[in-house]
Amino acid sequence: MRRAIYPGSFDPTTNGHLDVISRAVKMFDEVVVAVAPNSQKISLFTVEERMAMLRAHTTQYSTVRVSHLDGLLVDYAQSQGAVAIVRGLRAVSDFEFEFQMALMNRKLAADVETIFLMPKEDYTYLSSRIVKEIARLGGDVAAFVPGPVKEALVRKFASLKSEA
Amino acid sequence: MRRAIYPGSFDPTTNGHLDVISRAVKMFDEVVVAVAPNSQKISLFTVEERMAMLRAHTTQYSTVRVSHLDGLLVDYAQSQGAVAIVRGLRAVSDFEFEFQMALMNRKLAADVETIFLMPKEDYTYLSSRIVKEIARLGGDVAAFVPGPVKEALVRKFASLKSEA
Amino acid sequence: MRRAIYPGSFDPTTNGHLDVISRAVKMFDEVVVAVAPNSQKISLFTVEERMAMLRAHTTQYSTVRVSHLDGLLVDYAQSQGAVAIVRGLRAVSDFEFEFQMALMNRKLAADVETIFLMPKEDYTYLSSRIVKEIARLGGDVAAFVPGPVKEALVRKFASLKSEA
Amino acid sequence: MRRAIYPGSFDPTTNGHLDVISRAVKMFDEVVVAVAPNSQKISLFTVEERMAMLRAHTTQYSTVRVSHLDGLLVDYAQSQGAVAIVRGLRAVSDFEFEFQMALMNRKLAADVETIFLMPKEDYTYLSSRIVKEIARLGGDVAAFVPGPVKEALVRKFASLKSEA
Amino acid sequence: MRRAIYPGSFDPTTNGHLDVISRAVKMFDEVVVAVAPNSQKISLFTVEERMAMLRAHTTQYSTVRVSHLDGLLVDYAQSQGAVAIVRGLRAVSDFEFEFQMALMNRKLAADVETIFLMPKEDYTYLSSRIVKEIARLGGDVAAFVPGPVKEALVRKFASLKSEA
Amino acid sequence: MRRAIYPGSFDPTTNGHLDVISRAVKMFDEVVVAVAPNSQKISLFTVEERMAMLRAHTTQYSTVRVSHLDGLLVDYAQSQGAVAIVRGLRAVSDFEFEFQMALMNRKLAADVETIFLMPKEDYTYLSSRIVKEIARLGGDVAAFVPGPVKEALVRKFASLKSEA
Repeated sequence: MRRAIYPGSFDPTTNGHLDVISRAVKMFDEVVVAVAPNSQKISLFTVEERMAMLRAHTTQYSTVRVSHLDGLLVDYAQSQGAVAIVRGLRAVSDFEFEFQMALMNRKLAADVETIFLMPKEDYTYLSSRIVKEIARLGGDVAAFVPGPVKEALVRKFASLKSEA
Repeated sequence: MRRAIYPGSFDPTTNGHLDVISRAVKMFDEVVVAVAPNSQKISLFTVEERMAMLRAHTTQYSTVRVSHLDGLLVDYAQSQGAVAIVRGLRAVSDFEFEFQMALMNRKLAADVETIFLMPKEDYTYLSSRIVKEIARLGGDVAAFVPGPVKEALVRKFASLKSEA
Repeated sequence: MRRAIYPGSFDPTTNGHLDVISRAVKMFDEVVVAVAPNSQKISLFTVEERMAMLRAHTTQYSTVRVSHLDGLLVDYAQSQGAVAIVRGLRAVSDFEFEFQMALMNRKLAADVETIFLMPKEDYTYLSSRIVKEIARLGGDVAAFVPGPVKEALVRKFASLKSEA
Repeated sequence: MRRAIYPGSFDPTTNGHLDVISRAVKMFDEVVVAVAPNSQKISLFTVEERMAMLRAHTTQYSTVRVSHLDGLLVDYAQSQGAVAIVRGLRAVSDFEFEFQMALMNRKLAADVETIFLMPKEDYTYLSSRIVKEIARLGGDVAAFVPGPVKEALVRKFASLKSEA
Repeated sequence: MRRAIYPGSFDPTTNGHLDVISRAVKMFDEVVVAVAPNSQKISLFTVEERMAMLRAHTTQYSTVRVSHLDGLLVDYAQSQGAVAIVRGLRAVSDFEFEFQMALMNRKLAADVETIFLMPKEDYTYLSSRIVKEIARLGGDVAAFVPGPVKEALVRKFASLKSEA
Repeated sequence: MRRAIYPGSFDPTTNGHLDVISRAVKMFDEVVVAVAPNSQKISLFTVEERMAMLRAHTTQYSTVRVSHLDGLLVDYAQSQGAVAIVRGLRAVSDFEFEFQMALMNRKLAADVETIFLMPKEDYTYLSSRIVKEIARLGGDVAAFVPGPVKEALVRKFASLKSEA
């Protein structure tokens, strides 16, 4: 059985993430979607909220499991017996960073391969960061995220505004 | 009448910004320079200070209007009846980000075109961020910004230093 | 009146070219599409065939004129009283080359501006070269070029094959 | 069973190609290495010579099959029932081109995925073109290709020289 | 005598930094390694700790001097009578930023040249930021930094954890 | 004594080449400018013509020697006892190619370092290829090459035209 890990912050889930998952499912016997806590940036949604979103939109895949990371990605991949780390590639700056991470991960664990999948071109330039920025300014993100994620964004920014 | 929006944080105005404005003026009947509040980074100058700087250095153009943004760029562009959003292109990392924003904006408002102008090559690598860094360290930024902006930077960093 | 030149080899016209033309039409009072002879590479279609293709697919625009270049682009732009050279931007390698050409053209003629438009993302990675390669190998290029261009490609490669 | 196609011109086989094959073998049940005739550039070795080289250096993998392409890659992939096209990613210019090809291939055959693997960093900047250039000038390519390929290069350039 | 400045934040020293120093030593009569305070990001180690690390790992070079920067890099370079600023180049995003800084520095001080050296390819994608991230998550950074730096990282993160 | 090699095709010498030479002269005790025969592309000027041009425009530097390459660059560098190969860096695509060549050269000869210098920003996007293209179309290349090189280009294209 070949298992792959698809790690990310998924803050929140976008159509681009779901597109990558749909492609990984065809390649591997099991795909573990692993929510990383994201130490560098403050996240909008908690790890639990992010895992719930991913679960809600991957119910059609019996081979997808949603989990979370709390240590080093390669340690997690090895503990899961994964043969590959899956990443979606978008644009050039992405590519550079992804390449760097993949090389570092290979140094740390030579037996875990990183593979890159290309999301649908409509999602080539989509990122959670831009989706949040648009939602924060009151824009409609229906084209970029599933309906319930859009509603969660609206509620979250409304509650942040009432707090401020 | 063809109107264009030139958005940015302009924190502060550089010679590169003024160069892009001088080029946009030749292309459009009206150019609205729109100061964005810049949610992600803390700005050095207030929106009002930044608008005043831009006004002071665009008085020679009767077709330039300085304004500010407080919502989504494409909503503002549509409310102004603009046909285009103008962006200056500098280097590759710039290009990637600009491309991403332009594609997202097109999804949100298909009728607003983004066009890219190329600043004078002397300004190809100029950015507000680097100008601020040089000024903060006591360097002379006379080659990069108009005289009054240079003086405002000197005063601003002097007052920040006396506060600290 | 503001006139723009849209130069290229157009060997053959793709949906990406037509998309850029549709955007330029909104920006300028007249758009001159100028077929360049392409000294470096051997072209598949003659300049006349390429001009005919462009004319056939731009009849809906009263402000588009199809012409050809036989000298320096900036000399032609100046002789036409153009304020701008229009270019479509696709990917990074494109950007670098376009930037280089635009800077050289500015040195040769400071009063002609180069502006960059972004084709529809479906056409972001489309090029005449790849279309020709697919058609040569018998692939269906219906998604990339207008119907009559597809037929011209099929005929052209059939005649080249029978010659060989 | 999941089958993947690894296409290329392999003119000649380099250590980088063999490294990508070793990684693909871990991901898929069968890997078809498909030599493309390379229409644009004149090849140094014939398709048969290139297939023989690949076969000679992949005998340790029971799941690797060496073949050749004579039409469109996606048609071949579909005729083989492949789920994926495998590509090795080296540097940025590579990435752009690979991305473009992958998007075009997806338009032509939505069910064939392209996945990118990262060769060992020692091979990040290795290409058949540079290997040939070094061999042509009398340099030692032992670090870049298997021994028999090095010898084939030496013989080939010696015979080309004696012909000239 | 030709003196060069090698500036950086060195937070902490990596094998990549030491590799660049070993190359610069062959080019110049004296190499001043200058620790910059790094205004934008909070550093993990103090300037003094970073200088001590650099000194400890450059004792074999009689022509290396470790110092620190507290103003503008070009002012420091001129005060030291340096002919060159040395920078290590890694990947594309690096290159863009380095190019921008080098052009700005040249505007500020035309007589100080910036030269770029290429670290060993094993270190092409190595950065202090990634080393810290791996160490923070409990990963082994022995392949990326000298032994004592690894120990300092372990101690630092242990003390940060006990504080939290 | 530290000697550097500055290799290139110099077909023809541009102001960008002369700018790089002027910078290398400050760094090294001797700079050998080495004209490469350029196997891939047909050159406009002979190796002898190109060497004569370089000599004519470097007479002010007593430490510059013009030579030519007829084997592998690293073999030549070693035979000359050079410590460095000097390259001018222009734009991103350049950078990728230069990086690749430098890594290959390092594999072939570990003791020869490649260093990159940044030409004056006016020359950032200047190349012999574009200069030839402009000259061929009758444009004025006075801003890009020394006067005698401009005249040589005019004569060369006039003689090519009369032959055709």
